[in-house]
Amino acid sequence: MKLLRYGPAGQERTGMLDREGRVRDLSGHVDDLAGDAVSRDALDRLRGIDPESLPLVEEPERIGSCLSRVPNFFCIGLNYAKHAAETGTQPPKEPIIFSKASSALSGPFDPVIIPRGSEKTDWEVELGVVIGRETLYVSEADALDHVAGYCTINDVSERAFQIERGGQWIKGKSAPSFGPVGPWLVTADEIEDPQALRVTLDLNGERVQDETTGDMIFTVAQIISHMSQFMKLMPGDVIATGTPSGVGMGMKPQRFLKPGDVMEIEVEGLGRQRQEAVAAD
Amino acid sequence: MKLLRYGPAGQERTGMLDREGRVRDLSGHVDDLAGDAVSRDALDRLRGIDPESLPLVEEPERIGSCLSRVPNFFCIGLNYAKHAAETGTQPPKEPIIFSKASSALSGPFDPVIIPRGSEKTDWEVELGVVIGRETLYVSEADALDHVAGYCTINDVSERAFQIERGGQWIKGKSAPSFGPVGPWLVTADEIEDPQALRVTLDLNGERVQDETTGDMIFTVAQIISHMSQFMKLMPGDVIATGTPSGVGMGMKPQRFLKPGDVMEIEVEGLGRQRQEAVAAD
Repeated sequence: MKLLRYGPAGQERTGMLDREGRVRDLSGHVDDLAGDAVSRDALDRLRGIDPESLPLVEEPERIGSCLSRVPNFFCIGLNYAKHAAETGTQPPKEPIIFSKASSALSGPFDPVIIPRGSEKTDWEVELGVVIGRETLYVSEADALDHVAGYCTINDVSERAFQIERGGQWIKGKSAPSFGPVGPWLVTADEIEDPQALRVTLDLNGERVQDETTGDMIFTVAQIISHMSQFMKLMPGDVIATGTPSGVGMGMKPQRFLKPGDVMEIEVEGLGRQRQEAVAAD
Repeated sequence: MKLLRYGPAGQERTGMLDREGRVRDLSGHVDDLAGDAVSRDALDRLRGIDPESLPLVEEPERIGSCLSRVPNFFCIGLNYAKHAAETGTQPPKEPIIFSKASSALSGPFDPVIIPRGSEKTDWEVELGVVIGRETLYVSEADALDHVAGYCTINDVSERAFQIERGGQWIKGKSAPSFGPVGPWLVTADEIEDPQALRVTLDLNGERVQDETTGDMIFTVAQIISHMSQFMKLMPGDVIATGTPSGVGMGMKPQRFLKPGDVMEIEVEGLGRQRQEAVAAD
């Protein structure tokens, strides 16, 4: 299944893609895609629904984030070797965990707002993993059984806020609109191998990021198992699993977002995003 | 008002203390203390209720966290000069922001579970601030108008996980039970000056932490204003504002929690906590 949320920001309804890729109204079956509503059990209950039996939504005006009210918006740092190298750091020995403020959550086509005082707002296409079951002390072998699904994420980052403002990356990861998620939550059964997905980002039509999830240092299963040694993951938690090389801070000279810049983003099989950068009010 | 949640974990009901400090059942007026239900507007609507008119709860079996489903569990690092010194670091030039997994949230009298593989689980009594309004780019002068209330927090920390496991403190701050919050959410109108509260922690009856919030490097107003330059704070977000000196990692020799150790914790006017440390299953 490909699940989504559509409608004005803050008033989204739930939807499901039908066989022809059109949006069908799922709100008669599920109120919102958050927490227990995206547990594997809850998703199994939706699986019996024939999307063609649901009301067709003609040209939805807006697609929102495919998740709302995430209990946690986790991220993994430096999970591709070439990206670690371009930032001038060694590949990590174990996954680096950090988080975004949950209020950074944003729709896949919403503008990315360059915060006040920012000179280094940067892009990061990533494979997103949505947790579907309470997960504590899980083995690598069992970890993927805890995944509800996958989605495309842009882990937008302000490098000065992240690195030059007194510690802990969350400060540069959390501005409003810094977490476009979606367009779809693609359930885990539709993704045969999460380590075989091409991940690309075009900036103003120029391809700047292009690797596959096979280039990850730590696999999705390793990330989930590792995280679960330190915390209990919850249904609806989302994990951005790290970005490949090609971010602005790694370019020579460095290049950061200006108002009017357009990012087009895709993780294979999970749908495309497009964001235009705008200045904060 | 002093608001609380009581009952078995995961099935808490809302309550309010009456003039004699007894628990009254508030569940007829508010379902849960989370998100918009703790906005300043929502709290204003509760203010008209006479607690003596609510059903008396005789000896509630358990007091839960005074908040549920926090959108974010933020923390401030090294916010007391003597604590920074005991950890061997310089006082920060601006607030250090990090977070806990929201699943760390725990009741004020629930056991603190020492995680598997932990040798350095430590205590940190802190003043907790609960956000009552969407907060972005707020001035220091206006910041306290965005506070819903205050609470006692133990920012339980595993120092090896925090510092020795490849970066970003969240890894050592997020285990289940690492976030006792409560017993009460004390609304902001009852706290005349959040920078004049004594903060203490007794370990097995011995006082090990004892300062006041006047010793903070960054005040509550400065913290909120600063955070709001980087992210939008939301109603129900909680911020643990840093711990005074006297944590286990600062002792010579260092001392960490063992099963059976008892922490008794208080922030003046916000109520006492008591946790016994136990080993993880």
